[in-house]
Amino acid sequence: MTPTSPSTHWTLAARAAKMNPSVIREILKVTERPGIISFAGGLPSGKTFPVAEFAAACTKVLHDDPTGALQYAASEGYAPLRAMVAQHLSQQAAAAGQVWHVDPAQVLITTGSQQGLDLVAKVLIDAGSKVLVESPTYLGAVMAFMPMEPEVLSVASDSEGIDIADLRSKGRDARFLYVLPNFQNPTGRTMSEAGRCALSAAAAELGLPLIEDNPYGDLWFDEAPAASLTARNPDGGIYLGSFSKVLAPGLRMGFLVAPKAMYPKLLQAKQAADLHSPGFNQRLIYEVMQGGFLDRHVPTIRALYKTQRDAMLLALQHHFPEAQTQPDQSLTWNTPAGGMFLWARLPAGMNAVDLLPHAVDKGVAFVPGAPFYADHADTRSMRLSFVTPSVEEIQRGVAALAAAIREHRP
Amino acid sequence: MTPTSPSTHWTLAARAAKMNPSVIREILKVTERPGIISFAGGLPSGKTFPVAEFAAACTKVLHDDPTGALQYAASEGYAPLRAMVAQHLSQQAAAAGQVWHVDPAQVLITTGSQQGLDLVAKVLIDAGSKVLVESPTYLGAVMAFMPMEPEVLSVASDSEGIDIADLRSKGRDARFLYVLPNFQNPTGRTMSEAGRCALSAAAAELGLPLIEDNPYGDLWFDEAPAASLTARNPDGGIYLGSFSKVLAPGLRMGFLVAPKAMYPKLLQAKQAADLHSPGFNQRLIYEVMQGGFLDRHVPTIRALYKTQRDAMLLALQHHFPEAQTQPDQSLTWNTPAGGMFLWARLPAGMNAVDLLPHAVDKGVAFVPGAPFYADHADTRSMRLSFVTPSVEEIQRGVAALAAAIREHRP
Repeated sequence: MTPTSPSTHWTLAARAAKMNPSVIREILKVTERPGIISFAGGLPSGKTFPVAEFAAACTKVLHDDPTGALQYAASEGYAPLRAMVAQHLSQQAAAAGQVWHVDPAQVLITTGSQQGLDLVAKVLIDAGSKVLVESPTYLGAVMAFMPMEPEVLSVASDSEGIDIADLRSKGRDARFLYVLPNFQNPTGRTMSEAGRCALSAAAAELGLPLIEDNPYGDLWFDEAPAASLTARNPDGGIYLGSFSKVLAPGLRMGFLVAPKAMYPKLLQAKQAADLHSPGFNQRLIYEVMQGGFLDRHVPTIRALYKTQRDAMLLALQHHFPEAQTQPDQSLTWNTPAGGMFLWARLPAGMNAVDLLPHAVDKGVAFVPGAPFYADHADTRSMRLSFVTPSVEEIQRGVAALAAAIREHRP
Repeated sequence: MTPTSPSTHWTLAARAAKMNPSVIREILKVTERPGIISFAGGLPSGKTFPVAEFAAACTKVLHDDPTGALQYAASEGYAPLRAMVAQHLSQQAAAAGQVWHVDPAQVLITTGSQQGLDLVAKVLIDAGSKVLVESPTYLGAVMAFMPMEPEVLSVASDSEGIDIADLRSKGRDARFLYVLPNFQNPTGRTMSEAGRCALSAAAAELGLPLIEDNPYGDLWFDEAPAASLTARNPDGGIYLGSFSKVLAPGLRMGFLVAPKAMYPKLLQAKQAADLHSPGFNQRLIYEVMQGGFLDRHVPTIRALYKTQRDAMLLALQHHFPEAQTQPDQSLTWNTPAGGMFLWARLPAGMNAVDLLPHAVDKGVAFVPGAPFYADHADTRSMRLSFVTPSVEEIQRGVAALAAAIREHRP
């Protein structure tokens, strides 16, 4: 009766038809040739992973309560870890001069802070919803938002913060503004105290929720950044944090802090997404952090990354002495006050995507900046990571980059 | 100029407005009183977790390649684990008389098999898409599908399998049929060989993709279940598997196997959802499974669960002798051939939701069956888990259930 069909009809969801491989992952594949010095990766330095502490934690967790650690668990997360996160954030806000009482009941443990973005998207984005991002912004956030089919618009932003006039013109009917105020990925820039005050006031005035992502905030070089936006108006935002940059990314542990009115929806989305994050990993993180470990450990990461940032700045100054006097004829760059990335800009008339294969031929890789823009991309921009290569490699890599630019400058 | 707003305007996505806490989680909260014998949980027995093997694996992984285990990693998953999964599935299919060449490139490691459901939903469901499920079905799957706003319809199904006429009437414009053929949650039933042949043929004829979920397939008591549906038509389905029931759920490790045409979209959805599943956990699972560990370990789980199922069957026969002669006046039940659950049905005129508080008063808990139905719920049904309580507790729990039923029978 029914004609037999030779093959299965897979009908893709509209969102899936639009999904594309991460541009950056594709670029990174090209740059993974042996011998290439990579400023392209976004990986923390493996030297900073507290291996011995994790090993001790594995032994302790599997000795003290193996069944609890290996069994199904609450979607909210491991209660002692949630309490520790709440206390840590409250103390950090106090140190920055802000009162923020984080209740452990507001903390949701996530499978990396990337999952926090997925949950936020599910709970706050309808197809066609307007969502605002910085210019440029973290590409992984846009990729997490896209499955919910928003219209993503960028708000003009610079080293001080968000352009408030542009925000006012776009923010009225937006679902939220996504911001990464500390040592941003990709630019390495940090929002100033004045920029935070202005943004916080404007967001409150517009009634615009802020999604604040803070994976790099602890990695400051000279002084801690100003208090978080969420600490200034806890009911006005969702805060995303991560253990990936201060402990290790391979455990995929992050968290979010949400206003009590929003928490139940995020929790339900979490439950549907993966039931709960690995309880074993949550206990490992908790055990390693016991007794103030981060207070001893994070300064060593800061010192290492600062040395490497300094090496990159020095090499750039050496190879591009014209940056000060003829900026449009030179590579120019910023001076990140923390984090993992530096943002650079090619001489006028050059394009970072076009330069990349030539740079790889010279033995160095970077990530072109264009994919980080939701719109109006600056095609001269590029992201340089200073945390993975050694100081000596940074010197050789910058020399190779300079050679590639010299040879291909129009 | 702009009137200041006293509070942030959180606009929920339509899907979030419809999200509700899991009915079952809410029920379980009621039953978590101390002293209650619980047939309600869906937890594997903690006695089956290979703690010493996990401890040894932690030591080995952190010794052999700590940086690899703790660093960011590929979204696809740890290559040796993907190869091991592919080989295991190919061998299992061969043992069931089916040729299924699983290519490791088709294996995507997920954060529990629950995440596989989330990814499938993102890639295959548009708002309003028709999605078919068994009657009853795994509630967690429906919860994973709901954020993508499908219309979920159940297809009539029984202990043999899917009602093919009902499938034909509903399957033509559906995105997929979700099935759990082995020792199903909630019913414990297993699709027969004839049922699988009929479903496989009908799905191929309709061009209907099958989403096959198989978390319990290894937990058979007397003989392995028939070959999987995906093994019969690998391009016609996505197969979801889990390490939660054979090793431990607290590491949140599962996988999916997808046709090569579908894999890239699922991978992109995975990348956006949590970048990758914990590399440390993937290596632990791999190390524990090395050298055929499951061949020695899983039989011990089967033996334990079979003993407990037998105890429950015996207790039910003892307390409900009228089940054979006057089934409508008695509790009736099935005899699961594996897995963790047994499905029971109250005497005519009784309702499992209404009975639950009385049963809890008597000291025993179960999960009412109604929430597991997408439509046309059987309100007399209930799910009884036999894996968490001891044999002695099973005996006392069934006696308490019988007392509650006797006292409240109309």
